[in-house]
Amino acid sequence: MKDITLKEIASQLGISITTVSKALKNYPDVSEKTKKAVIEMAQTLHYTPNSFAVNLRTKESKTIGLIIPEVMHHFFSNVINAIIDEAEKNGYLVIILQSNESLELEKKQVELLINKRVDGIIMSLSNESNNDDHVKEIINRGIPFVLFDKITKLAKCSKVIIDDQKAAINATQHLIDQGCRKIAHIRGPLNPQNAIDRYIGYKKALEKNNISFDASLVYTCENVTFEEGIEFTEQICKDHPDVDGIFAITDLVAVGALSYCNDHNIKVPEQIAIIGFSNWFMSQVITPKLSTVDQPSHQMGIESFQLLLEEMNCHKEGIPFTPRTILLETSVIVRESSMR
Amino acid sequence: MKDITLKEIASQLGISITTVSKALKNYPDVSEKTKKAVIEMAQTLHYTPNSFAVNLRTKESKTIGLIIPEVMHHFFSNVINAIIDEAEKNGYLVIILQSNESLELEKKQVELLINKRVDGIIMSLSNESNNDDHVKEIINRGIPFVLFDKITKLAKCSKVIIDDQKAAINATQHLIDQGCRKIAHIRGPLNPQNAIDRYIGYKKALEKNNISFDASLVYTCENVTFEEGIEFTEQICKDHPDVDGIFAITDLVAVGALSYCNDHNIKVPEQIAIIGFSNWFMSQVITPKLSTVDQPSHQMGIESFQLLLEEMNCHKEGIPFTPRTILLETSVIVRESSMR
Repeated sequence: MKDITLKEIASQLGISITTVSKALKNYPDVSEKTKKAVIEMAQTLHYTPNSFAVNLRTKESKTIGLIIPEVMHHFFSNVINAIIDEAEKNGYLVIILQSNESLELEKKQVELLINKRVDGIIMSLSNESNNDDHVKEIINRGIPFVLFDKITKLAKCSKVIIDDQKAAINATQHLIDQGCRKIAHIRGPLNPQNAIDRYIGYKKALEKNNISFDASLVYTCENVTFEEGIEFTEQICKDHPDVDGIFAITDLVAVGALSYCNDHNIKVPEQIAIIGFSNWFMSQVITPKLSTVDQPSHQMGIESFQLLLEEMNCHKEGIPFTPRTILLETSVIVRESSMR
Repeated sequence: MKDITLKEIASQLGISITTVSKALKNYPDVSEKTKKAVIEMAQTLHYTPNSFAVNLRTKESKTIGLIIPEVMHHFFSNVINAIIDEAEKNGYLVIILQSNESLELEKKQVELLINKRVDGIIMSLSNESNNDDHVKEIINRGIPFVLFDKITKLAKCSKVIIDDQKAAINATQHLIDQGCRKIAHIRGPLNPQNAIDRYIGYKKALEKNNISFDASLVYTCENVTFEEGIEFTEQICKDHPDVDGIFAITDLVAVGALSYCNDHNIKVPEQIAIIGFSNWFMSQVITPKLSTVDQPSHQMGIESFQLLLEEMNCHKEGIPFTPRTILLETSVIVRESSMR
C-alpha cells in the first residue's frame, strides 16, 4: 500500500500543503469550495490520516486492547462479548489479542498495544505470567489498565475477580454434603493465581470436615482441556478405584471426566459425583447434567470495561484515579452429576 | 499517557535531536557512550518510537488484522488458533476484531485496521455483509486480503472455502439413505452465502430423490444459537409431528435440537434422525453422539494465513499477485444421532 501524503493532494490540486491540512481539519479560513475539492481528492487518492498524528491531536484513539489467554474458552468468549457490547455503547473499538497462554507472546502484544497507542488495556494473564515487567510497564506508563479473572495480586491496578478460594470451598463442601469422602481434584496449572486458590479451597474444605488431604488425589492439568479431563479420570480410576467424587478446575475438564465415566459405565453421581467450575451452557446439555460453580462471566466483562472507562475518563481530564478491586459473587449450581 | 519525543530526550541529555535520532537508529557516527546514554534516557522516559514512522521506514508493521463475526463459535475459535499459530511462526502478530454479525461494526473495524496500517487482512463476513464498499476499499487500496468461510463471491480477492452446497447435499442424502422422508431444515440467516448454499444443497438432495420440497419445513435462524435449535425443534414437532429427520445449519443448533428431543422423550434417531454441520468436539460428547459434516476449521486457518503471507510477500517485493480460491474437502461423519 502506498502512503498518500498531504503533499500529493496539494500537488494534484495545485494548492499549498498548509491549505490541504487546514481544509481537512475544517479550518474556517479555507473556502467551502476548496474544502470540498480537498476531501474529494483525498478520497480519490485513498488518503488515510496518519493515525499517530490524529491521536496526538485528539489525545484519544477510541480503541482499547484486550489480551486474553484463549478465545476458545466459553468463559472468555462471554467476557469478550460483554466487553465489546459495553465498548460499542461508549464509542470504543476493541482490539483482541490471544496470548495462547504464552508469556513471550503476551509481552509482544502489550508492546504492540502500547505502540498502537490504545486508550486502555484489559487483560487476563496467561498461565505463565505473573507480576512481570510488561505488566509493570503498563502501570508505570499510566495507561488505564484492568486485570480480570487471571490476575496477579501484586499489580497495582484495578481488578475484577471472584473469590476462587471461597467458591472452591463451597463446591467441595457440596460433594462432602452428598456423602463423598474420597474426592479427587483435577486442578489447573501451578502458576495462575485462580488455580492456586481453587486448590487451596479444596484443601480447606477437606480440613474443615476432618477428611485428611491426600496429595496423590490431586491431578494437575497443563492446558485445562477436555482431553485432560478424560485422561486424568482414567488415571484416577486406575490409581484410586474407590474415589467417590471429582472436583474439576473448569466445566470443560469436568465434561471430559463425565464423558470418560459415561463411556466406561461408571455411574454418575452414584459411583462418582462430579462438579465443575464456570457454568458453561453445555453443562446443562450433557447427560447427566453437570453441577458447577456459576462464574458471572458476562458481568465480569461489563465491570471490567466500566472500571477501565472510569480510569480513561479520569486520565483524559487529568484527574487522579485510585485503582479498585471488584469482587463478584459466585454460587454452586447443583444438577444431576452430583445430586445423590 | 504523555507522548515522549526525541526533543525531550535531547534536552535531558543536552545534545541535539539529530544525535538522539541517530543514536536510536544505531548510526556509526555516534559514539557508543552517547548511544548508551540515549537508550537509557529513552527507557527512563518510556519513549516509544512513533509506530507510524517505524512503519514508513520498514514498510511493514508485522501485524495482520482478523475480522470474524463471533469468537464464541467453536468453528471460528479453531480458525483463530490456527491463524495465530501460523502467524507467530512467521513473525506476525494478529489483531482480532469481532464484528458481532454487524455490518456497521465491521465497517469501523476495517477502517481501524487500514488506519493502523496492518500488513494484511483476513476476514469472514458478518451475516449482514456482502460485497459492500468497505470490502472493495481493502481491495482497491491493494492491501493483501483473504476472505474465508463467509465470503462474497463477487469480491476480487483470495478465498478459502468449502463447497457448502455439495456438503449439504451429502448430509441430506445421508438422512434419506437412513430412511427419512420428511426432513426439516433449520437454516441460517437469509444473506450469508454459506447459509444460502447449504439450503440449496438440502433442496437439491430432496429433488434428486423425488421427495417434494415443502417450504413449511424450512426454519430460519436469526442468530444461529443453541436456543434457536431448541425453539425451532419444538415448533417443528408442533407443526409437523411426522417429521423424521432434521438437518441443522451448525452443530450448535443441532445440539439444541437434540437437547429438546432428549427432554421431551423423542427418540433420536428412531423417531427423528439429526445431523449437524462443522464437527464440534462437543458433538461427540452429548448423548446420543451427533452426526455432522466435518468442516476443516484448522486447515482453513492455516490456508488463509499462507495465502495472505504469499500476497504480503509479493506486495513487499512489488511483484503482482493473482488472487486464488482454495476449496477444502468436507465429509459426512455418521454417529448415533442418525444411524438407524
